[in-house]
Amino acid sequence: MLKNYEGINAISEFLKQNDGYAIIIHISPDGDSIGSGLALYSALKLMDKQCTIVCQDRIPQTYSFLQYANEIITPDKAQKFETAIAVDCADVSRLGAANKIFEGAKNTLSIDHHGTNSMFAMHNEVHPYCAATGEIIFELVKTMLGFISSQIADCLYTAIMTDTGNFSFSNTNSNTFEVAAALMRFGANPSELNTLVYRNVPIAKTKLLGFALSTFELKHNEKIGISVVTQQDLQRYNAKGDDAEGIIDHIRDIESVEIAIFMRECQDGSYKVGLRSKGNNDVAALAQNFG
Amino acid sequence: MLKNYEGINAISEFLKQNDGYAIIIHISPDGDSIGSGLALYSALKLMDKQCTIVCQDRIPQTYSFLQYANEIITPDKAQKFETAIAVDCADVSRLGAANKIFEGAKNTLSIDHHGTNSMFAMHNEVHPYCAATGEIIFELVKTMLGFISSQIADCLYTAIMTDTGNFSFSNTNSNTFEVAAALMRFGANPSELNTLVYRNVPIAKTKLLGFALSTFELKHNEKIGISVVTQQDLQRYNAKGDDAEGIIDHIRDIESVEIAIFMRECQDGSYKVGLRSKGNNDVAALAQNFG
Repeated sequence: MLKNYEGINAISEFLKQNDGYAIIIHISPDGDSIGSGLALYSALKLMDKQCTIVCQDRIPQTYSFLQYANEIITPDKAQKFETAIAVDCADVSRLGAANKIFEGAKNTLSIDHHGTNSMFAMHNEVHPYCAATGEIIFELVKTMLGFISSQIADCLYTAIMTDTGNFSFSNTNSNTFEVAAALMRFGANPSELNTLVYRNVPIAKTKLLGFALSTFELKHNEKIGISVVTQQDLQRYNAKGDDAEGIIDHIRDIESVEIAIFMRECQDGSYKVGLRSKGNNDVAALAQNFG
Repeated sequence: MLKNYEGINAISEFLKQNDGYAIIIHISPDGDSIGSGLALYSALKLMDKQCTIVCQDRIPQTYSFLQYANEIITPDKAQKFETAIAVDCADVSRLGAANKIFEGAKNTLSIDHHGTNSMFAMHNEVHPYCAATGEIIFELVKTMLGFISSQIADCLYTAIMTDTGNFSFSNTNSNTFEVAAALMRFGANPSELNTLVYRNVPIAKTKLLGFALSTFELKHNEKIGISVVTQQDLQRYNAKGDDAEGIIDHIRDIESVEIAIFMRECQDGSYKVGLRSKGNNDVAALAQNFG
């Protein structure tokens, strides 16, 4: 079996020589976990390996265009495989109900980029320098297959694009851009993927944003921006709680604002509070004072 | 003197061997023209060359953080130099009042990426494959100096970031990403530049966006989105015409919308109409019907 830190070549050899893989995407799946998981799944299929791909939670509609997205199943429907591979999971809690598959496997492997990774698998291939797990899977698939199909390139570009806020977050590094360049040469289409992921906004979400940007308040010399959305507001626009995502970024992006606060009423009448700062304000400390 | 298409090495040699340069940024200057122009200006200064940098129009406040942005002057204030260099200008009309400087120069050079470039200079270094003129200036500065200062890297990253819609437009190609990777190694900071360029939004602009997203209309099975902003609306939010920029993108990004129409009343009571399509709708043909 594999040991820790043997590197991409060792994983590649292991996956080539063995068979029967269950790929696990984390709970509340995001673009990196879905794109990375599907890229690995596609590669194993191209190698004629028996494999499955599981996630406890529903895959957001946004990512349904990715190849094999419709083959992601819930853990209860998955058959047993010899090797379980956790993708983009920092600790065992991120596996959710798929933990049962992980615990039942003879070999366990974790491929991740979180610096906080708890090293919960038999082999942990953790690269905290990578902005996205997609960068690690890129090296793995290229090593295993010698090429990247255009469908796999789209999956990996989506993984990297979403985990770096389209190359705007501080995790973006020169390797991120180099992998993006390589993925384009293998057929990834950044403008199409941007449109598919970021430019298909539900009407309700746009209307809710219009409401929030018409009603936010500025306090303390316009340094603090506050936006509140109630259940009644959500109902008025036929919006779901998820549709409030991104409002806080618009408030934070106002030039005078240093701290943005977004409060959304939940169905039980409680409020979910989001905090975001520009620059170096310690929102974690502020959040504790709220507690 | 230089002839057409001698390439980056020839321009590099010419600029090294001569002295006295007027760099011209185009009218209604954008991030690519400003960033590329300032990068070249910085490089010539590092080479102890006599040079000036001119633009007919005011440089938007957004780009004031770039090194030497405060040294950009209007054409009437510029002294005469032997060689004029147009940066990111597709034709002579883009020079505006700086055309006088261009016409009066002994040598003229144009560095541009527009496929429509009219080859108006003595030497035209036009690379339509490049997403931004910043990519060409990157090669030129690297060739001339053998390195890129972190300030020049910031200028060139800003040029490329803005001309590709932060790597989301269809002009983005693998070379664009490779240059971005190299610029990071030379010290460019994508997350900081994203914040400086995209995340310092005037309050008036955010409020105007809130208004527009609260009042837009959808027609033809929600396939056409229409937003209208009057002079009265601008005044209500203390907004300028420029603050309406970007509204049309939010309307186009609604999932059902195929064509977005944005109408803004001008001070003389006429309306400026913007059209944007998702995918392959021919907005140019539609615009002609409007004419």
